[in-house]
Amino acid sequence: MAVYTEVSDEALAAFLADYDIGGMVAFRGIAEGVENSNYQLRTTGGDFILTLYEKRVNPAELPWFLGLMEHLAGRGIVCPQPVRARDGAALRMLCGRHAAITTFLPGVWPRRVRQEHCGPLGAALAALHVAGTGYAATRPNALGPAGWQPLLLRCGDGADKVQPGLSIELPAALGRILAAWPQGLPVGHIHADLFQDNVFFLDGKLSGLIDFYFAATDILAYDIAICLNAWCFEQDLSFNVTKARALLSAYEATRPLSAAERAALPVLCQGAAIRFALTRLYDWINTPPDAMVTRKDPLEYVRRLRFHLAARDEHAYGI
Amino acid sequence: MAVYTEVSDEALAAFLADYDIGGMVAFRGIAEGVENSNYQLRTTGGDFILTLYEKRVNPAELPWFLGLMEHLAGRGIVCPQPVRARDGAALRMLCGRHAAITTFLPGVWPRRVRQEHCGPLGAALAALHVAGTGYAATRPNALGPAGWQPLLLRCGDGADKVQPGLSIELPAALGRILAAWPQGLPVGHIHADLFQDNVFFLDGKLSGLIDFYFAATDILAYDIAICLNAWCFEQDLSFNVTKARALLSAYEATRPLSAAERAALPVLCQGAAIRFALTRLYDWINTPPDAMVTRKDPLEYVRRLRFHLAARDEHAYGI
Repeated sequence: MAVYTEVSDEALAAFLADYDIGGMVAFRGIAEGVENSNYQLRTTGGDFILTLYEKRVNPAELPWFLGLMEHLAGRGIVCPQPVRARDGAALRMLCGRHAAITTFLPGVWPRRVRQEHCGPLGAALAALHVAGTGYAATRPNALGPAGWQPLLLRCGDGADKVQPGLSIELPAALGRILAAWPQGLPVGHIHADLFQDNVFFLDGKLSGLIDFYFAATDILAYDIAICLNAWCFEQDLSFNVTKARALLSAYEATRPLSAAERAALPVLCQGAAIRFALTRLYDWINTPPDAMVTRKDPLEYVRRLRFHLAARDEHAYGI
Repeated sequence: MAVYTEVSDEALAAFLADYDIGGMVAFRGIAEGVENSNYQLRTTGGDFILTLYEKRVNPAELPWFLGLMEHLAGRGIVCPQPVRARDGAALRMLCGRHAAITTFLPGVWPRRVRQEHCGPLGAALAALHVAGTGYAATRPNALGPAGWQPLLLRCGDGADKVQPGLSIELPAALGRILAAWPQGLPVGHIHADLFQDNVFFLDGKLSGLIDFYFAATDILAYDIAICLNAWCFEQDLSFNVTKARALLSAYEATRPLSAAERAALPVLCQGAAIRFALTRLYDWINTPPDAMVTRKDPLEYVRRLRFHLAARDEHAYGI
């Protein structure tokens, strides 16, 4: 569930008075999302999303995210657009939180990934990477390789409680991944969290991308590796190479990969898998069991990690 | 959070194909509500709510609820309207659940009750009671007085774990309430769950009522007692008699209370308070701590109950 902060009608009315988007019509909490509080807001002027940024987001970084969304939209990427209040500012305060109104995107995220989703996903990811060029400000990826070792240490001895042996397996895998981490690959702005619930489809076509609050400046092909992890494993965690091929070939139709990027796919996929295994493990250990958030199973990503560690080269991904 | 059943896009597309409401535009889970899965559905034909009925609802009773909503709307009550598929049926199956599409109501539920909400609430409640006349089918109130003793027994010795002494206090209060429960008061169809999140306001006016899945045939004034409990206590659980007076006088402008109904208000309020105390207690004891649902504190209703037990007569409620 994704409503951590309840907004009173008086507070909302006062907030909306700063905008030129018409009067209130409807306001409902959105169930999806786990990081921020999201409301679907309808005014006489149209439909919007109201986001209250919760504690995981660093307020100092919000202008970077909103600026990236504006930049991308100006380059043809369909993504939420920050709506500016009368004074020109998109980032404001509401109920003690930083808050922003963004445009509403039509579309439905796919509850079950089918092969025909993966081509459009690859094409959209490549378009995103190309469109990001020219957004000069950068944001280091706090959840990139430099962050993994500290994250593992903060999990303490919790790993073995999730599965005995993990406290040996994860550091060993992490050491191997960091030692092999590629240098010199093309870097740009990546989405870094392009899971199913952040990709909308409509009438069989990809209709938009949302939730740029993990976006960062990092190796572009690492974003592909995140998508291969998120979109190309079946429920039983078997790897669907047909989906991977569809994703990669559609990506390459817009932005062909260099030989070095292709060769790095296994380690990039290992990195992406351990990144989500570690954040899930950390959340698993640190989420009070009575919290409103569903804890995601870290083992799903440990199993993906094992697959990628066994991949001999990029051909494991269908190329 | 109120999405227990995830609906795949294929299943949704197949489901919508039976309706004449246009093609899919957007589909988001709604955070509010705890009993069923609710989605906000937009099609090219407009906005709707898709509800999947979860385990607490008895499927055999769904036609009664949907029929009541249609009856009430026909009498001018603004409430969700079941949308019929091409074959004329409003109640269907989706993802192994009974499901229905209803119309979307504009409005926002008040996160904080102000005095000016209570008059419109009383007026709407009276209008609901009057409009219910003529809906011939009845539904016994499973959570009415006959259900309280069994519910208390099913809580076993859990009450004392919530607060020592409750296992003495609650049965004593219940015995007193049941012994004094009024007979012969006017009966009709009651909403029975008209809490804040089921009442929408727009531009300072009450714009609609939702969530009729606790509705039943019971003492009309008991519905007032539920609203007095839900709307007229402050955060610190002090009773705001000004709000109560606003609620009751607006109610009486449409449907004046008899002397017997007025005199019964204290015991009806005691009954309403113990009903919510008991269901919350039961849920508190039986909800796994890692469930996605926020458990509501039963003590908030125990404290209301104590207030009502101390009420000498109906003047305690401002009349």
